[in-house]
Amino acid sequence: MKVSHSIIKTQIREILLRWGMTEIHAETTATLMSDADLRGIDSHGISMLTVYDERRINFLTLQDTPVAIASETPVSVLVDGGGGLGYVPSMLGVDRGIEKALETGMCAVAVRNSAHFGAAGYYTRRIAEAGLIGMATTSCPRVQVVPTHGAEPKLSTDPWSFSAPAQRNAPFVLDMATSTAAGGKIRNRATEGLPIPDGWAVDAQGEFVTDAERAFTIGAFLTPLGAKPELSSHKGYGLAVMVNILSTCLSGGSLVTSEGHARRIPGTQDLNHFFLVMRSDLFRPAAEFAADVDTLIDDLRATRPIHPDHPVLVAGDPEEIAKAERSRDGIAIAPGLVARLREVAARCGAPFLLI
Amino acid sequence: MKVSHSIIKTQIREILLRWGMTEIHAETTATLMSDADLRGIDSHGISMLTVYDERRINFLTLQDTPVAIASETPVSVLVDGGGGLGYVPSMLGVDRGIEKALETGMCAVAVRNSAHFGAAGYYTRRIAEAGLIGMATTSCPRVQVVPTHGAEPKLSTDPWSFSAPAQRNAPFVLDMATSTAAGGKIRNRATEGLPIPDGWAVDAQGEFVTDAERAFTIGAFLTPLGAKPELSSHKGYGLAVMVNILSTCLSGGSLVTSEGHARRIPGTQDLNHFFLVMRSDLFRPAAEFAADVDTLIDDLRATRPIHPDHPVLVAGDPEEIAKAERSRDGIAIAPGLVARLREVAARCGAPFLLI
Repeated sequence: MKVSHSIIKTQIREILLRWGMTEIHAETTATLMSDADLRGIDSHGISMLTVYDERRINFLTLQDTPVAIASETPVSVLVDGGGGLGYVPSMLGVDRGIEKALETGMCAVAVRNSAHFGAAGYYTRRIAEAGLIGMATTSCPRVQVVPTHGAEPKLSTDPWSFSAPAQRNAPFVLDMATSTAAGGKIRNRATEGLPIPDGWAVDAQGEFVTDAERAFTIGAFLTPLGAKPELSSHKGYGLAVMVNILSTCLSGGSLVTSEGHARRIPGTQDLNHFFLVMRSDLFRPAAEFAADVDTLIDDLRATRPIHPDHPVLVAGDPEEIAKAERSRDGIAIAPGLVARLREVAARCGAPFLLI
Repeated sequence: MKVSHSIIKTQIREILLRWGMTEIHAETTATLMSDADLRGIDSHGISMLTVYDERRINFLTLQDTPVAIASETPVSVLVDGGGGLGYVPSMLGVDRGIEKALETGMCAVAVRNSAHFGAAGYYTRRIAEAGLIGMATTSCPRVQVVPTHGAEPKLSTDPWSFSAPAQRNAPFVLDMATSTAAGGKIRNRATEGLPIPDGWAVDAQGEFVTDAERAFTIGAFLTPLGAKPELSSHKGYGLAVMVNILSTCLSGGSLVTSEGHARRIPGTQDLNHFFLVMRSDLFRPAAEFAADVDTLIDDLRATRPIHPDHPVLVAGDPEEIAKAERSRDGIAIAPGLVARLREVAARCGAPFLLI
């Protein structure tokens, strides 16, 4: 079935309200989650309600949380998420970070005592739309990525996002798991009973695993970007460590390698996010910067493709294309997900709108 | 043959002086270049003299260059390299950036009108050794990396470096080309007549090329990290674009996609570098940050390995290991390189010390 973006957003908000989230927090969270559905990032939209419901029931995330700025300097903001989902504290931090960066030139933002914050690209796109350069990282609860030469997982899919404003073009927005494939992609293959390509997952002997169900559940681990040592998987592994240093070590939270990571403290997953906001005119006028970003984007899109049906895109393009299509045609939700969301709604007494 | 670090450094300095570099610039440049040899980064040490000599003769880099701070704010420094090699302006910018970040919390540093600056990790390690978090990027002259789905190269090996200070451990220093393999690795294989693994290079049809000579010279291009679309080469490609935005678009220089990139303006390669320096105590005490970085490093090194002879390392470890070995045993220089360096020395009338 296909539904409109506004129905998805309303459905999310109704459920969050029944869970005990305040009106304003539910509105912000539903806005960000449904934006992921609109942009084709199905792993980070309404489908996450099923995961959040489980975490809520297991008392890993709180709903009615105090979110507040814990400390600030002219170039930094620290937000405490109060043990709830990461959307509201991240938006608070990013918006304050934009204000500060516009004044001083740069601002680092950290959010501690938080949980899942959705798609990292939402925040960096927001920064770019305000005319600034953005970076975003977060720690993640699921330990499933294996370091290069390792026989056991020690890291997560630890995403990295970077954005830059353009003038003629939509902003450049890179939003990537530092693993070869995002966990959600493997989960989707498992749901469909499809295999995964060589290189996405390995077993404890370092052999590739193509059974998606196994890779997503037991006996296999995700590879860091690069997939194997000969293809420089140490780089994806290194990027994942960088993401953990920026996310967790800077502001203090559950270290991904720690015993019981993200499940240790009742009432919080103790996850952390990091953002960097930087003016684009620190070294020359903003218009010159944006004009060069435009030229770079145009030049890359003009690359002669191997196959005419696979043009060369630029980071952010797939999301813009999905947004145009889905705004017009609606957003497809698979029957399995509809059924699970019906249960989530019933469990909290929310109206079910996906009919 | 094996020679000591100090002989390599002296040899580099003697040649740079004959090329017309000032005493102080030659000393700094030789220090950084020979540090690469000491740390096992053979592609960025004394071997670069052969490349620099060619660029010097072709009037692409100047030797006796004015290097100066062009502008600054409390959170930024812009250095003009005067068309010479990038070592001296980068050191000036990074050291000023460290001073500023210690004062204000963060500093962005750009170097314009520059050329090759050596190993990016030298600068981020320096930042980490001063107790701060560092990032470094640079634009590169050689257009040889193909965007995902592209049939022609549009990018370079565009490196990314990130560092963080620890307490018990050496700093975490990630220094990586955003291509699957660095150009120097393929050059070395070509020199030895060895093939390269599937995934390092492709032809215009997107088929893997294993002939190193061809991959390094004609008809084949380097792949972005990820190697192919199914293994998320769009991520390596996206990282390369990010590196160009930070390096070139921010401070203005030769855009990697521009006609005649890095050869357009007589007397300069017009390359640019970017650095970010950030205090580690913006959100909590520096000692707590460093203790968590130490724990993370220790936990990762303790990962059960697939093979006991390939332990799990952390970014920066290979360079520390090489430094310990080479400080003790000397640095091996292959006969082919010795012969070429002899020519370089003879051409400018420098004494030849590698005998």
